[in-house]
Amino acid sequence: MSGFLSRRHSRLSPYVPGEQPRGGDFIKLNTNEAPYPPAPAVLSALTSGAASRLNLYPDPSGTALRSKLAEYHGAGVQNIALGNGSDETLAFIFLAFFDGERGVMFPDVTYGLYRVLAALYNIPYSEIPVGESLAVRPEDYVGVRKNIVLANPNAPTGIALSMDDIERIADSNPEYIVVIDEAYADFARRSAVPLTRKHDNLLVVRTYSKSRFLAGARLGYAVGHEALIGDIETIRCSYNPYNVNSATLEAGAAALESGEYYGERWERIISVRDASARALRGLGFELTDSEANFLFARHPEVPGKALFDGLREAGILVRRFDSPERIAGWLRITVGTDAQMDALVRALAAIIDTEVKNAKK
Amino acid sequence: MSGFLSRRHSRLSPYVPGEQPRGGDFIKLNTNEAPYPPAPAVLSALTSGAASRLNLYPDPSGTALRSKLAEYHGAGVQNIALGNGSDETLAFIFLAFFDGERGVMFPDVTYGLYRVLAALYNIPYSEIPVGESLAVRPEDYVGVRKNIVLANPNAPTGIALSMDDIERIADSNPEYIVVIDEAYADFARRSAVPLTRKHDNLLVVRTYSKSRFLAGARLGYAVGHEALIGDIETIRCSYNPYNVNSATLEAGAAALESGEYYGERWERIISVRDASARALRGLGFELTDSEANFLFARHPEVPGKALFDGLREAGILVRRFDSPERIAGWLRITVGTDAQMDALVRALAAIIDTEVKNAKK
Repeated sequence: MSGFLSRRHSRLSPYVPGEQPRGGDFIKLNTNEAPYPPAPAVLSALTSGAASRLNLYPDPSGTALRSKLAEYHGAGVQNIALGNGSDETLAFIFLAFFDGERGVMFPDVTYGLYRVLAALYNIPYSEIPVGESLAVRPEDYVGVRKNIVLANPNAPTGIALSMDDIERIADSNPEYIVVIDEAYADFARRSAVPLTRKHDNLLVVRTYSKSRFLAGARLGYAVGHEALIGDIETIRCSYNPYNVNSATLEAGAAALESGEYYGERWERIISVRDASARALRGLGFELTDSEANFLFARHPEVPGKALFDGLREAGILVRRFDSPERIAGWLRITVGTDAQMDALVRALAAIIDTEVKNAKK
Repeated sequence: MSGFLSRRHSRLSPYVPGEQPRGGDFIKLNTNEAPYPPAPAVLSALTSGAASRLNLYPDPSGTALRSKLAEYHGAGVQNIALGNGSDETLAFIFLAFFDGERGVMFPDVTYGLYRVLAALYNIPYSEIPVGESLAVRPEDYVGVRKNIVLANPNAPTGIALSMDDIERIADSNPEYIVVIDEAYADFARRSAVPLTRKHDNLLVVRTYSKSRFLAGARLGYAVGHEALIGDIETIRCSYNPYNVNSATLEAGAAALESGEYYGERWERIISVRDASARALRGLGFELTDSEANFLFARHPEVPGKALFDGLREAGILVRRFDSPERIAGWLRITVGTDAQMDALVRALAAIIDTEVKNAKK
């Protein structure tokens, strides 16, 4: 820290992303990326039109992509705001709607960036403990008269709320913003987007990183009432009016035209997820009921750190979290291909075997 | 504006970017883009390696590109922070170092985003009038004990300070940050980057949009003392740790390997700029002494609005600004190709001819 940093940031502790190794031959199951490339039409969009006009600025209003997204979601252009990844979209929302007078609440077990964004903008926040089963308890958010951010499915548990619960939460806090972060919603086969038509305080945030296999292209967006979207656009244009690059704008539109390509692979990821969950249960793991493209698991006899280290030694990267304490023993494992998950299960079986034998010595 | 927008933003007036027409057959001289595509190696980088790994997140630390930039500038990796365009880099700097207690000053005639960013973060700012000639007066910034942001060359005038002046300003405000925004510096053939080695309060911000012909790819960066860069990195990782997409990271590195391609085209832009300035003077225009890739000009007899509208009708887009009042008669004209500038000069000659005749009737 330099002597110049504003005092308001003196205790800032940035988000720590999962490891992105350069080189090495890892099976990478640590940052919830897809094991498949984006659709062929997306790759052509990236390498044809956009590339030849890179000397020009992108369309700062992103109208072509927003129109396609509007059509996809049955909404209007004025209901969509684009971000350089959904992390940026979340940052715009925090800065636009939350402040010292009107703070925000979210679960204590959830995506770590919410806490970091609140701290960045000096927004008071409360972290609401999830239940015993690690599930968000909807009743904790009903009628609380607070701004609320919920990932649905939640990370890193993968547990999803029902649409009824979300509607109840939005309905009962009409003067406050309810943000539903749907980074993983395509793997749960349901979305709160249709609810934004009825609830002018509901914002749904989505990303191309997970279910469009475009984490490297950086694209996210918010869907909501046009007044809320107008506010987000005011913030966006005050911060970085050209926030999405031109190739990504074209790729984003092309992805929406490749529904079959994505739909098939979502089904494959879901079926590999469920098969892997059964295999892990067979090894004695306890798992949350994940509806996302990852599993969240712990072993009653082997500490999370030992599993994590053993997997890394076997060339398999997964993710673990130190806090809150209650999830310190758990691993978050991205659903990869069948072959990758077989390798994972074999490696875990070997680690458990060794650890349990050692413990009995 | 929705009823949910934080009250601190109720008077926010976002930056208005220059027009980016979709379709139409305009000669586009309004947003200081290059009339040339990026170097061939840049295009290959975009379409080869990166595209095939887009399902994976980019390297959040951007180390490969930062190493190349460090080498290019004779600095270290820890002296470089990447942004999604230099607008984002500026946003990080404003949020990191300026606050209610320590505001910022910049010229009243300069890049409009500075004012918008200060307003976005509720940072008090003063706008220091430029001199009669529209040049920044360095003595206005010496020993002022304030954070300072200066574009050099300045926009929209193109007038540049000397390196001695910049050093004097940095030296005389040792407890405050001095930001030099070098968006156009490659066209002035000098940079304050070497001064960052001696001055731990000096930050230089650069962009790939203008002199690397990559406005569509969104890439900017800051160069400075490692403590300042560390602070910017803290903000970046609290806001959007994956802020630069993987294709852009690769394109940025490739551009630095194509020195000859860019060097030749910078010389061409400079020589077209100087020839166009002479041609405009021949039509009676008054011009600032621009060292950037644009001209700033007014005609003593024809209002700026009439010139602007006449050019638009002739299919040529340029930029004009309504405020401050003193520059309302001026046009900012990006330096295009020889042929584009010939068309501009012909169109201006015709407009002036008509307007002057009309005035005499």
